[in-house]
Amino acid sequence: MSFESRTSGVTAQPVSRLIDELARLPGVGPKTASRLAYHILKTPKDDAIGLAEAILEVKERIRLCSVCFNTTDIDPCAICSNEGRENRICVVEQPLDVVAIERTHEYRGRYHVLHGAVSPVDGIGPDKLRIQELVDRAQREQPDEVIVFTNLDLPGEATATYLHRILTPLGVRVTRPASGLPVGGDLEYADDMTLGRALLGRREL
Amino acid sequence: MSFESRTSGVTAQPVSRLIDELARLPGVGPKTASRLAYHILKTPKDDAIGLAEAILEVKERIRLCSVCFNTTDIDPCAICSNEGRENRICVVEQPLDVVAIERTHEYRGRYHVLHGAVSPVDGIGPDKLRIQELVDRAQREQPDEVIVFTNLDLPGEATATYLHRILTPLGVRVTRPASGLPVGGDLEYADDMTLGRALLGRREL
Repeated sequence: MSFESRTSGVTAQPVSRLIDELARLPGVGPKTASRLAYHILKTPKDDAIGLAEAILEVKERIRLCSVCFNTTDIDPCAICSNEGRENRICVVEQPLDVVAIERTHEYRGRYHVLHGAVSPVDGIGPDKLRIQELVDRAQREQPDEVIVFTNLDLPGEATATYLHRILTPLGVRVTRPASGLPVGGDLEYADDMTLGRALLGRREL
Repeated sequence: MSFESRTSGVTAQPVSRLIDELARLPGVGPKTASRLAYHILKTPKDDAIGLAEAILEVKERIRLCSVCFNTTDIDPCAICSNEGRENRICVVEQPLDVVAIERTHEYRGRYHVLHGAVSPVDGIGPDKLRIQELVDRAQREQPDEVIVFTNLDLPGEATATYLHRILTPLGVRVTRPASGLPVGGDLEYADDMTLGRALLGRREL
C-alpha cells in the first residue's frame, strides 16, 4: 500500500509521491522514507536540486566499460585505459566490489565485473553473466593471473569453480583469495565454516 | 572527506557525486550511500527519473500553509480548509507529527506546526517558532481546546509550559497528551521517568 493511500490525503500529493519513490530504495522502509522526504523538504533548495541532478546525471552519463563491464563515464574506463596496471584480472560480482578492493591499495591489476554469480536455483546460468567476455579477454590479453574474487557464498563458489574449469585449459592461472578469520575478528564468534577454513589454510610464522 | 577523494578517481565522477549527495541525507553513511547509488545505477531509467522528479516537484510545489504552517501544495491546506474538522488545535513540532496523529484516526480537529521546540541551550526562543501565529489564531478562532502535542523531552516540555502560560490568560483550555507506558510495552524495560508517570496518571478500571 502506498504512503498516499495510508494517510488518506492529509499529506500533500508531491510529498507522498516522494515518500513512495524513496521507499522503493533498498533498505528504506516507509518510516525512513518519510523522514528523508521531510528532510528534503526542509533542506535548502539548491541541495535538493543537487541530489536530483546527481541522480539524472548518473543515469545519463554512466554506462558499462566495454572491456571490464565496470560502471564508467568514459570508455574504456579509467582502470582499463591505465597502462601502468599489471596484466592480471580480478573477477568480481558487482561494481561496488571494485571500489572495495581499490580501497585496500593491495592490488594494482585490472578488473572484470560479472554482474552477478552463477546460481541455477535462481535461473542464473553462465550465459546471463559477462563470462564469455571474460574468456575472450583472457585469450586476447593473456593475463598472468585471474583472481576470482566472487563472494564466499554458494553462487560465488559455484562461479569460481566454473571459471576455474573453463579458464585453466586456456593456460590461465586461476586463483581465489584466502579465506579465514577476519582481521580483528573474535574466534569465539566465527562460524564453523570460517574456523575450518582458517585452520586448513594455516601458515608458518 | 568525500567519496571521490577516498577512492582516488577509480569511481566514475557522476557516481561519486551521487554517493556524496546521498551521504548528506540523515542516517545515510558512506556505505549506505554507495549501496543506494549503485542501486540507482542498476534501476530502470524511468524509476530513477521518477525519484529525481519527485525531489524537484516537492521543492517547487510544497510550501507552508498560511494558517497552520504544515507543509502543503494548496493554501490553506486540506485540513485547514475542511469545514468538518472540530474547532480544536493540536500543536506539534514537525509536519511528520501531523502524519503520525492522523494515522491514529482518533483526532478530528486542526493542527498548528511550530517547526521546532523552545530550547534556550540551542538558542531557540519562542520568537524562532510559529508561536505568535498560534496566539493570533487562538484569539481569532477561539478553539475549544489547544492540545500541546510536543515531544516529551526537555524542549517539548518547556514549549508546553510556555504555551500554557500565554494561552490560558486568553481563556483557552490547554491540554497535554497522557504520558505513561507505551501500548505493548514491557514494564521491565520502561525507564524510571515513564514508570513514574504511568503510576502518577493511573486510572480506575
